Amino acid sequence: MRQAGRYMPEYRALRTRYSFLELCHTPEAAAEASMLPVTLLGIDGVIVFSDILVTLEAMGMDLSFDEGKGPILGDPIRSRADIGRLRHYDANVGTGYLPAAIRLLVQRLDGSLPVLGFAGAPYTLACYAVEGKTARHYAKTKSFMHTDPVGFRELLHRLADAAADLLIAQIEAGAELVQLFDTWAGDLMPDEFRAFALPAAAHVIERVQKTGTPIVYFVNGVGGKLHDIQSAGADVLGVDWRIGLDAVRAEVGPGMPLQGNLDPCTLYAPVEVIESRVRDVLAQNGTGPHIFNLGHGILPDVPVANAKALVNAVKTWGLR
Amino acid sequence: MRQAGRYMPEYRALRTRYSFLELCHTPEAAAEASMLPVTLLGIDGVIVFSDILVTLEAMGMDLSFDEGKGPILGDPIRSRADIGRLRHYDANVGTGYLPAAIRLLVQRLDGSLPVLGFAGAPYTLACYAVEGKTARHYAKTKSFMHTDPVGFRELLHRLADAAADLLIAQIEAGAELVQLFDTWAGDLMPDEFRAFALPAAAHVIERVQKTGTPIVYFVNGVGGKLHDIQSAGADVLGVDWRIGLDAVRAEVGPGMPLQGNLDPCTLYAPVEVIESRVRDVLAQNGTGPHIFNLGHGILPDVPVANAKALVNAVKTWGLR
Repeated sequence: MRQAGRYMPEYRALRTRYSFLELCHTPEAAAEASMLPVTLLGIDGVIVFSDILVTLEAMGMDLSFDEGKGPILGDPIRSRADIGRLRHYDANVGTGYLPAAIRLLVQRLDGSLPVLGFAGAPYTLACYAVEGKTARHYAKTKSFMHTDPVGFRELLHRLADAAADLLIAQIEAGAELVQLFDTWAGDLMPDEFRAFALPAAAHVIERVQKTGTPIVYFVNGVGGKLHDIQSAGADVLGVDWRIGLDAVRAEVGPGMPLQGNLDPCTLYAPVEVIESRVRDVLAQNGTGPHIFNLGHGILPDVPVANAKALVNAVKTWGLR
Repeated sequence: MRQAGRYMPEYRALRTRYSFLELCHTPEAAAEASMLPVTLLGIDGVIVFSDILVTLEAMGMDLSFDEGKGPILGDPIRSRADIGRLRHYDANVGTGYLPAAIRLLVQRLDGSLPVLGFAGAPYTLACYAVEGKTARHYAKTKSFMHTDPVGFRELLHRLADAAADLLIAQIEAGAELVQLFDTWAGDLMPDEFRAFALPAAAHVIERVQKTGTPIVYFVNGVGGKLHDIQSAGADVLGVDWRIGLDAVRAEVGPGMPLQGNLDPCTLYAPVEVIESRVRDVLAQNGTGPHIFNLGHGILPDVPVANAKALVNAVKTWGLR
């Protein structure tokens, strides 16, 4: 998952020199942050350091991070008229620092490890654009969706093309796998997911797949929407921790690549519990293709030794 | 769902005379608050006005409500030793005002409508006892669970007996149906749900069913855990909005009584959208037994006219 070094002292040291957004905006620093979990933990891929909201920033929304309170976006998009305020987006101009960071990483790694890119999915970006922050219920977003479904689809369509542009720019810079993060789409009723979030995500996936690079679709909360999420057509299904990989495997079959799904809070547990729970997740997946991961982003205050124990456990007990 | 009048001007008028906790603690006022949605909307049952946290308060935890920020519990339970601080609980003494409110309601309704009681489920009460507030990740709760599973089970057992005692006291006072609220259990990995939350909830359900009164088990987030939740043995399955009743019905069969499951945010939509979504939920349930409800608690700022439109739509299109 993204920003995977943020619990490390080395990351906090970097942060004394750069604000969070400066890190995102500075290719050299972003590349340095991206490498921390690789150097210190020995993970098998390098996720570029960035944030899903840089797309909205590049579309003209004022983005800031209030320490401990999450992102703030100025002048939220609350109506169809507001959509006109979003600027034309060119991924290599508005967010050129992100492919630039990937190019630096590819150069530095020289083929030893793959570089992974990501972007926010259209519905999740819409949530932030409409609320202006992380919300508890996403009531304003859903209110927009219910009150003006045509306008809301227009917003989703703008954001879908932006997300696809950004992923393709990362692929052109050398990313070998990309992930589309739909953090809030799991909170929709399934028919609203099908009517709004799904077609927008499927549009991104379709555009990305034309490049030949595989894409992971991660919805936080796949339980109750598994078949719909699979119908988005991604190459890999990202799975949150609230459902067992055994149940997912039973539904999607032995050949579908899955990513996930240990509860991020498990990293607060004693090492022997972490090891035991890693083995449970591996066993629940069975022998099908599996990218071991947490079921959502790593939390900023987990002990580094525990993250290291997780990586070691996966390397010890995971199939190769 | 509980506290169902809190979006009404009449409720806010009551709140100028009583704090939230004073309302819970004063049978006459709680009965008055309980009646508001019945008088103003015409719903088919009367849910006693209370809060799931009164159990913890009666067990000696200092409870307060910080306006807009939710509940605060002093001196959280963070270890096995802390459990000893929880006082012996007698539902008719420590929370005697709650059965008293039910007796007043039964007397006033004189058989015209059923009175419904509720309590917090053991895992959800444990979350509040351990965190001391509504948390984002319940990391401290899960940390306790992983670090000292024996101690955590001891806490769950204490809270299970307290929840059962409170539900039985409400039944003895005249409640004809009770609900066990497991707001945070859906956030567990399924095997941790099976190992911790489920046996504790099943213990409550078993004790309550000995009275002959039916019980609803509501887990917020049934997707991915449906069969486990059903195995708790409740008479009615409460369903959140993130899964379709059609998918639930397909799994649990035509005879299982279901409760739910419109997204609470739908009440911000225009009336014609509310009506259409009510019909969708009714159609997804099919012809099986169904208690129409929101998929979680009503939000405090929805327009009363929209709640009224929902009740009318259910009465117009629901099967009788």
